[in-house]
Amino acid sequence: MQTSKIKVGIVGGTGYTGVELLRILAIHPSVELSVITSRGEAGLPVADMFPSLRGYIDLSFSDPAKSDLASCDLVFFATPNGIAMQQTRELLTAGVRIIDLAADFRIQDVATWEKWYGMTHACPELLSQAVYGLPEMNREQIKGAQLVANPGCYPTAVQLGFMPLLEAGLIDPQYLIADAKSGVSGAGRKAETHILFAEAGDNFKAYGVAGHRHLPEISQGLTNMAGKSVGLTFVPHLTPLIRGIHATLYGRLNKEADLQGLFEQRYANERFVDVLPKGAHPETRSVRGSNQCRIAVHRPQGGDTVVVLSVIDNLVKGAAGQAVQNMNIMFGFAENTGLEIVPLLP
Amino acid sequence: MQTSKIKVGIVGGTGYTGVELLRILAIHPSVELSVITSRGEAGLPVADMFPSLRGYIDLSFSDPAKSDLASCDLVFFATPNGIAMQQTRELLTAGVRIIDLAADFRIQDVATWEKWYGMTHACPELLSQAVYGLPEMNREQIKGAQLVANPGCYPTAVQLGFMPLLEAGLIDPQYLIADAKSGVSGAGRKAETHILFAEAGDNFKAYGVAGHRHLPEISQGLTNMAGKSVGLTFVPHLTPLIRGIHATLYGRLNKEADLQGLFEQRYANERFVDVLPKGAHPETRSVRGSNQCRIAVHRPQGGDTVVVLSVIDNLVKGAAGQAVQNMNIMFGFAENTGLEIVPLLP
Amino acid sequence: MQTSKIKVGIVGGTGYTGVELLRILAIHPSVELSVITSRGEAGLPVADMFPSLRGYIDLSFSDPAKSDLASCDLVFFATPNGIAMQQTRELLTAGVRIIDLAADFRIQDVATWEKWYGMTHACPELLSQAVYGLPEMNREQIKGAQLVANPGCYPTAVQLGFMPLLEAGLIDPQYLIADAKSGVSGAGRKAETHILFAEAGDNFKAYGVAGHRHLPEISQGLTNMAGKSVGLTFVPHLTPLIRGIHATLYGRLNKEADLQGLFEQRYANERFVDVLPKGAHPETRSVRGSNQCRIAVHRPQGGDTVVVLSVIDNLVKGAAGQAVQNMNIMFGFAENTGLEIVPLLP
Amino acid sequence: MQTSKIKVGIVGGTGYTGVELLRILAIHPSVELSVITSRGEAGLPVADMFPSLRGYIDLSFSDPAKSDLASCDLVFFATPNGIAMQQTRELLTAGVRIIDLAADFRIQDVATWEKWYGMTHACPELLSQAVYGLPEMNREQIKGAQLVANPGCYPTAVQLGFMPLLEAGLIDPQYLIADAKSGVSGAGRKAETHILFAEAGDNFKAYGVAGHRHLPEISQGLTNMAGKSVGLTFVPHLTPLIRGIHATLYGRLNKEADLQGLFEQRYANERFVDVLPKGAHPETRSVRGSNQCRIAVHRPQGGDTVVVLSVIDNLVKGAAGQAVQNMNIMFGFAENTGLEIVPLLP
Repeated sequence: MQTSKIKVGIVGGTGYTGVELLRILAIHPSVELSVITSRGEAGLPVADMFPSLRGYIDLSFSDPAKSDLASCDLVFFATPNGIAMQQTRELLTAGVRIIDLAADFRIQDVATWEKWYGMTHACPELLSQAVYGLPEMNREQIKGAQLVANPGCYPTAVQLGFMPLLEAGLIDPQYLIADAKSGVSGAGRKAETHILFAEAGDNFKAYGVAGHRHLPEISQGLTNMAGKSVGLTFVPHLTPLIRGIHATLYGRLNKEADLQGLFEQRYANERFVDVLPKGAHPETRSVRGSNQCRIAVHRPQGGDTVVVLSVIDNLVKGAAGQAVQNMNIMFGFAENTGLEIVPLLP
Repeated sequence: MQTSKIKVGIVGGTGYTGVELLRILAIHPSVELSVITSRGEAGLPVADMFPSLRGYIDLSFSDPAKSDLASCDLVFFATPNGIAMQQTRELLTAGVRIIDLAADFRIQDVATWEKWYGMTHACPELLSQAVYGLPEMNREQIKGAQLVANPGCYPTAVQLGFMPLLEAGLIDPQYLIADAKSGVSGAGRKAETHILFAEAGDNFKAYGVAGHRHLPEISQGLTNMAGKSVGLTFVPHLTPLIRGIHATLYGRLNKEADLQGLFEQRYANERFVDVLPKGAHPETRSVRGSNQCRIAVHRPQGGDTVVVLSVIDNLVKGAAGQAVQNMNIMFGFAENTGLEIVPLLP
Repeated sequence: MQTSKIKVGIVGGTGYTGVELLRILAIHPSVELSVITSRGEAGLPVADMFPSLRGYIDLSFSDPAKSDLASCDLVFFATPNGIAMQQTRELLTAGVRIIDLAADFRIQDVATWEKWYGMTHACPELLSQAVYGLPEMNREQIKGAQLVANPGCYPTAVQLGFMPLLEAGLIDPQYLIADAKSGVSGAGRKAETHILFAEAGDNFKAYGVAGHRHLPEISQGLTNMAGKSVGLTFVPHLTPLIRGIHATLYGRLNKEADLQGLFEQRYANERFVDVLPKGAHPETRSVRGSNQCRIAVHRPQGGDTVVVLSVIDNLVKGAAGQAVQNMNIMFGFAENTGLEIVPLLP
Repeated sequence: MQTSKIKVGIVGGTGYTGVELLRILAIHPSVELSVITSRGEAGLPVADMFPSLRGYIDLSFSDPAKSDLASCDLVFFATPNGIAMQQTRELLTAGVRIIDLAADFRIQDVATWEKWYGMTHACPELLSQAVYGLPEMNREQIKGAQLVANPGCYPTAVQLGFMPLLEAGLIDPQYLIADAKSGVSGAGRKAETHILFAEAGDNFKAYGVAGHRHLPEISQGLTNMAGKSVGLTFVPHLTPLIRGIHATLYGRLNKEADLQGLFEQRYANERFVDVLPKGAHPETRSVRGSNQCRIAVHRPQGGDTVVVLSVIDNLVKGAAGQAVQNMNIMFGFAENTGLEIVPLLP
């Protein structure tokens, strides 16, 4: 294992994935945080914007144009979609490894990406070397990756829930339903009316039923697991939590199996996937602030519909925590380094 | 239309359905509230327990044993399951009409009821005369009913969402999925740990996946709509709202149809079902405090899965409001009397 | 009493005070809502923005420049500060009466107003004819007023709490403390980061301790009650409620008195001020959605500090409801017309 | 410094202070958790009750009667008031050191304690050797203490806020006001109606204005700081947070001083008290999950009223975290051992 500290930069540190990266990296023993950029807040001490970091982070935001990212060992992009791809080629050439927490490198098919994200991809030739950073699926490729596409929050919860069933060929891949509920921090720290406290509080709604950007990302992953194309209905909902995703997944069983055993075996060696005992119902708060995914599998009334319940903290296993998990894998640190954070309950 | 006031009694007025009945009846022009009972709180002025009613309700809770329910025109039971059935026969004999907001008369098959509710039914011979009080389905029978079984909250949202599709035979009744989310008031006003603010707040979970008491009630209703037996997977969830149910319903289309037109036509004359424009996503807060059900129908990606979004306030259209709607129908008042309450938003 | 309907216009209907005015006026028997303007949303049906109003409000927002406000009997301004004052002179000249829900006419001293609001007043000559619309203080002047300055939310809760004590000269006016807590809707429906759900949720903070715009408004009112200048420390806080203000008021008693009797007597004839029994603690939810102010007065440990607890719904008694109350007074309707809305609890 | 692990027991581990102790101790490098008792849950694995602890705590609850507490180096009592005092003598005799998170040993005057807690004290003779565990005040005595009375949550926030002012004699001790707001977890994990989600959610209220048990505890501390008796008005409020206390403190200045400098100097060497820059408003979420107290001092309008804002997480610095801080001091560990938990924001 590597023991000296690596130099890490963060591009775009003013959003929730940025502050969450800082929370985790602040006490990571193998990381020296050397630069954090923000176009709008250059010069401002990070802890002035996020007082929770007082005493932990002494850096100020720096102007992206003047920041020496090239001297970093690793750069995290905690930026809106479409930013990372504009700097990736140059940084990779400089020998910097990259983890993009946005969506620029998550989808292998350029046309699909451009359709859903509504822009031209800046470096389609790099897609083939980008590794999709879901460690439970791609650990070996992540180890040597120069460029990691950190999965989306919904895609993490949904893929981990369906994975054992699809890999084992137990459910009909044509009729998959993912009914997912997200806390409001999943929408980011943008000043938008619909996520105001007085709008999103004491309220519940579905959104994007006609089509959400995470649909092609999830479909791509499920297709890889199933080894054939899948039919997925994905309905996201906004629920008045700050943090947390709860995915309720429905599949049609096409053969008998020990579902509980299947899940336990598939994740037996995964530090951050916890299969609950039979009959359990995971709560989002049981993973609050932690990198854990907790899963339960049910077969109501003994029928042929399997129901999987999968919960994560969207900002940790669904974003910054998984990014640090990927970093640990890439740099040969123990995979749980800096991630043994006990969930905050209540 | 009847114009003189009817005498109304409420048995069990200390829970949320009780106080909600009071909120609505307090300003109902055709109701004289004559008695409200509570075993535990006899003698206490109602407005001492619920200060929101100060100035509107002058009654005190009375001892059930000493209350003159027999002189009422109508008695609402806002009691736990198993209470109403013990007094029904006597009250009906006395000429009192009854609306039970609990589950005692919701399921026609006694064996099914006794299995799910874990007790022996006290008056199975009355089940056949009980009318299931979903006005959009059974309005004519409700008019003449002496005994109305007011539907459960989940069953109301789910049945109104599936009804047009099943009546028209457009979806496969064997593969119905109802993923439902409820605010915490749906669990009642009981001192239980799991619904404490510090437990249910900032938290989301499924529960009862193996089987929930509303499953047989919903199945019975859907079977009636479809004209044949149905296969339903019902997964309820607890979400940190005070009020509101959001049902997300999934069905498999088996023929082409104008879904939007179907829903609009089916509910064209229903005052309390509002079909939203194509592409809309109803929010629970858009019905907060009101007797409205709002519904949107989607067909994501033009595939063969239909998604229906149905929202109600669980305490109003899902309980007390629907009970008053049933009362209005039974006594010949305009169906919306006392129910033109504009939803509270934000 | 006047019985025919009056024509009412609303300028600026897209904020929370606007939608709240609509919720109340929608079922007001003496109002014909004839125009509602919005610069940004002209042409949009009001109910498309606020689905809670579907079935109640058929109007669309109209362009302020093209709206015939002059033919209204009354115009409400539910606009940001500084807008109403630009149209007031013209409308008054046209014989239109005005209720401004913003702050343009709340402070009689122009210099003070300009200092706190940071702009030049457009019509200082009209200030003297503006009536401060706190009915419990100024009912007689409101009756004949052409121009009413509707009080702010904090000022309503604080003034009603201190009024009996100051009028009776029972407390030292030099040492008044108002520790006030507001729900987030008080900040309006503006897309600002600090009122996002993920910022204001599960969080509590003071703000504006150095000075808040409601300070001079409150001081002016308290000075009028006391008949001499007052010394007030006012600390507002943001609490994770949607609606509600709770003011905790502290004063130093300078003589003995029957405090409970004093409050009950002062408000005996006030429909919208409810003095709770001795020892009570009013809850904000006990007035949710209603025009009620509930007050309790305490003297902890029998010492010489009096503590008054005063709660209102900031959008109703603290804004739109009080505006309608003022309208009722101005036009000779019963003061509670359209305002007998039972609070929504839970 | 001591380096070997100490054996620790917890009596009463099913409440919020218990699970919070477990969250912190689970990863404390110098603690071996050897026993945790619960009368009601003996035999149940701790992580079955609190799934957040899965993978961190393997212990099961044990029957208090059969638990070997005497072999522990330290026992925490996370029990209701009145339990610890019944076992203290025996454990002290056995050489076990004790930290009581309840109130049994917080008040030196037995008569006062018995009046406020409504029971006879079981071991008044031990009160004189009990050390009040506020490290910023009593660090030296804590080092050698056998019995530590861990402060209450409100008392911690209030005392740390007033301490610099009273020690310096800058404010009139006769007119102190503490307006304090607590999240709902402060009421504990008891099944009581008033702290249900549907009761405490979207609601704000004061309580205990006539007298709260923390009043004599705070008064005792403030008296010690001032060196003379104090007059305190203490009004607690319940706010819809899960965690967090915000104390707003008011005092009357009796001489000029550099308030900001005073606070910064007083707490310069305190790891867990953070004085914010001038003009700041601390948020409860800025300390969520951490042992930090953040304080800001204001002098509104330059008048003679000083306003101090003080926030803590009631379960950490207000309970379990402070208890661990005391443990660290008692056993010679670095005071921040196991307590460098970055606050969870958002």
